[in-house]
Amino acid sequence: MKTNDTICAIATAQGGAISLIRISGSDAIDIAARVFTPRGTQSLHDKKSYTVTFGDVKDIRGEQLDEVLLTIMRAPHSYTGQDTVEISCHASSYITRELLIALIENGARQAEPGEFTMRAFMNGKMDLSRAEAVADVIAADSRSSHRLAMNQLKGGFSKQLKMLRDKLLQLTTLMELELDFSEEDVAFADRRELIALCVEIETIIANLTNSFSIGNAVKNGVPVAIVGEANTGKSTLLNALLNEDRAIVSDICGTTRDTIEGTMNVGGVSFRFIDTAGLRRTNDVVEQMGIERTLNQLSASSIALWVIDPMMNLDTMETAAKELLPLCKGKTLALLINKCDVVDAISLTRAMEWGTRMVQKHGNGIEWNSQNVWAISAKLGINMDRLEEFLVTAAAIPEVSAESVVVTNIRHFEALKKALSDIQRVHQGLQDQLSGDLVCEDLRQCIHHLSEIAGDVTTDDVLGNIFKNFCIGK
Amino acid sequence: MKTNDTICAIATAQGGAISLIRISGSDAIDIAARVFTPRGTQSLHDKKSYTVTFGDVKDIRGEQLDEVLLTIMRAPHSYTGQDTVEISCHASSYITRELLIALIENGARQAEPGEFTMRAFMNGKMDLSRAEAVADVIAADSRSSHRLAMNQLKGGFSKQLKMLRDKLLQLTTLMELELDFSEEDVAFADRRELIALCVEIETIIANLTNSFSIGNAVKNGVPVAIVGEANTGKSTLLNALLNEDRAIVSDICGTTRDTIEGTMNVGGVSFRFIDTAGLRRTNDVVEQMGIERTLNQLSASSIALWVIDPMMNLDTMETAAKELLPLCKGKTLALLINKCDVVDAISLTRAMEWGTRMVQKHGNGIEWNSQNVWAISAKLGINMDRLEEFLVTAAAIPEVSAESVVVTNIRHFEALKKALSDIQRVHQGLQDQLSGDLVCEDLRQCIHHLSEIAGDVTTDDVLGNIFKNFCIGK
Repeated sequence: MKTNDTICAIATAQGGAISLIRISGSDAIDIAARVFTPRGTQSLHDKKSYTVTFGDVKDIRGEQLDEVLLTIMRAPHSYTGQDTVEISCHASSYITRELLIALIENGARQAEPGEFTMRAFMNGKMDLSRAEAVADVIAADSRSSHRLAMNQLKGGFSKQLKMLRDKLLQLTTLMELELDFSEEDVAFADRRELIALCVEIETIIANLTNSFSIGNAVKNGVPVAIVGEANTGKSTLLNALLNEDRAIVSDICGTTRDTIEGTMNVGGVSFRFIDTAGLRRTNDVVEQMGIERTLNQLSASSIALWVIDPMMNLDTMETAAKELLPLCKGKTLALLINKCDVVDAISLTRAMEWGTRMVQKHGNGIEWNSQNVWAISAKLGINMDRLEEFLVTAAAIPEVSAESVVVTNIRHFEALKKALSDIQRVHQGLQDQLSGDLVCEDLRQCIHHLSEIAGDVTTDDVLGNIFKNFCIGK
Repeated sequence: MKTNDTICAIATAQGGAISLIRISGSDAIDIAARVFTPRGTQSLHDKKSYTVTFGDVKDIRGEQLDEVLLTIMRAPHSYTGQDTVEISCHASSYITRELLIALIENGARQAEPGEFTMRAFMNGKMDLSRAEAVADVIAADSRSSHRLAMNQLKGGFSKQLKMLRDKLLQLTTLMELELDFSEEDVAFADRRELIALCVEIETIIANLTNSFSIGNAVKNGVPVAIVGEANTGKSTLLNALLNEDRAIVSDICGTTRDTIEGTMNVGGVSFRFIDTAGLRRTNDVVEQMGIERTLNQLSASSIALWVIDPMMNLDTMETAAKELLPLCKGKTLALLINKCDVVDAISLTRAMEWGTRMVQKHGNGIEWNSQNVWAISAKLGINMDRLEEFLVTAAAIPEVSAESVVVTNIRHFEALKKALSDIQRVHQGLQDQLSGDLVCEDLRQCIHHLSEIAGDVTTDDVLGNIFKNFCIGK
């Protein structure tokens, strides 16, 4: 990954009144000076860091393109840690396009998504978990998700990680002391002390790992799976839920959300609905990837809504139920008998009884009780309030404070899970009086996995994966 | 119109990596200092103009909202001529919303569309024609339209106007000299000189007025009316024209383009298609406004495409043709016999003959010749190249240079037309030996109408109308 050439990108969205173009790299000021003429007498090279200059930019033909404000921030005191120039121009797509072309013609390169933030990480301006928080700050759409992202950006999580690693190093030092003396078979009085430290570390990691379910719910919304046969009214239900006077949160930049139909807020909690409609078309090879994504999303969701159409021939549908219900294992389930506006009471009752029977027969591991079945009309909005109450109760998300350290990133969660199982093995090894070098190996693994989060050990692949989901210009 | 309170607005479009919030007014720095804490030791009030400061902004609860860059530009050296603060923050809708709320809570007011530019005009930073060019610069989507807008923003048009008014003042001085001596019946030797000056002014104004047809076409695209009965395939034609690999230009901010279906570029010329589908539903009162707009657009267009479906019963359709063709008066017309992929040759020929007959019978004042009728299939794209050739030839737009002074604004065009008829009356009066005070009255009117363009004489209504079409934040 090249980090010493000069990159440029439009950092604002298309439209509006003003657009901002960012340039970062050792030639940033040189390249800017080739397209920009200050209105004053002082050359751009003589301008101080953190000053703004009014002037004109020209296109590659030398024609005046715009009157702009240009900001210079010199290395290392800039976002990327490199010489940085920001040009604030009129928000015309013609101007921004031509200006970008002129910068590229003069030696800059179009930046990849997230490349400015990646350079900030590479130049030691922030650790990896803070760099990742930048994308979260931009995507945050509620007070809670913004709080968590800001806390991570400010380094709340980094601090906690550093403290953890200090403790682990302390443990390693003590262990290695034991290793050195193990030949002499010295019985260490403080093996209990080692175990106590180990338990302490275990608890911190476990708390962080456990916070992910809250963090993920706050950041992305509580995932709710909608299951049911085709034509039972799943889409109508979704529209009924979303088309009320609530905020519909649009997709964030670059995040793959193919399987998600929409997000809505009820009682301060955001819910993210996952349509499982595509799940049963498994013949197509290309679709397989989408299906796997849906299954992943489904497995992360804690709530499931099973929509039943009482007008269907239920007797023939047990096969379908047998397929659908195992997907809801471990989730809190509601049985929604839809279309109650057009169906007689007998059919409704029959459908409720059938659904209940199916859950009892095939719904192994599903959280369900007899309160969780009722008739709705998605079309007319009948009994939707009951559904909203169910969702809020089933979600049960606590309020997060400005100081909460909550894991919101799946990469961090995965690394923490590995670190947790490492430290648990260390604990076990200490209890089982395993040899010091074996225990030390697990300890090193634990440190390694925690280091991955801050980016102390990392690969180009990991970095590429992290930054590809950023916006261009960040 | 209040111009001394402090206004704020988001100046960038939603999305992207960075958002910019603008504050202008005498309290701008005070208000910014209440929500912003610099990371350094120096207070915001001590910062020099045109410097950038890194720091934190907080929301109304005092919670940290974001890490931002803040730029100060002190009066009068700013865009608006007032103290101005620009805050560059992460592009999260949560952050920008909360930051705007915090600024408003601390004494700023949400800006109206174009209010920053209106203040620039009010404070004498630019005349009205240049202020109007700001919106044109932002909307410009081609090299030609950008050139015209930039030239107007740089004051090319303002300079020409100033020169014109200097000449008019010179004429007025000479005339008033004559008035003073008219009692004494002095026969002025230089009445011919007055007429020569008058003719010169007339020529300049006439050239500017004539340039509007080019200016309007470059700025907004050459208007092309699509007429025809329902179901003749007008929409398919439009899609066929637009869905090729050409740029589809989206609507610009704030401009009412209800009647326009799309814009496309062929051979460097942009065309703007006006669907006349809505024209015949005239019962509804509310729709009347939309219809009037369509009629206005229609009257401005120089090219018309009449789409005929050869499968319709043409004998019964003369009434419709009688209604449609008068709308095409003064325009270059093409008769397009659509659906040639499914119709036999005899029906095609019959439709061509019928259309030709209709144009000859009811198409009084239409520019048309027998070359301008051919069969197409909008669906399969047959003979669309011929249509494109026809459009480019019929448009006949000359290239505009970077120095061209071309009128692109309908308000300027209207004022110039009035000024032209004023100066023509002056000319006539001089020739007819009318009394000096009568001629002087016309001369004053001419100066008045030209002054309206630069905004030397203006009303709140006029200003309101101009700036309401701007983006918020400009």
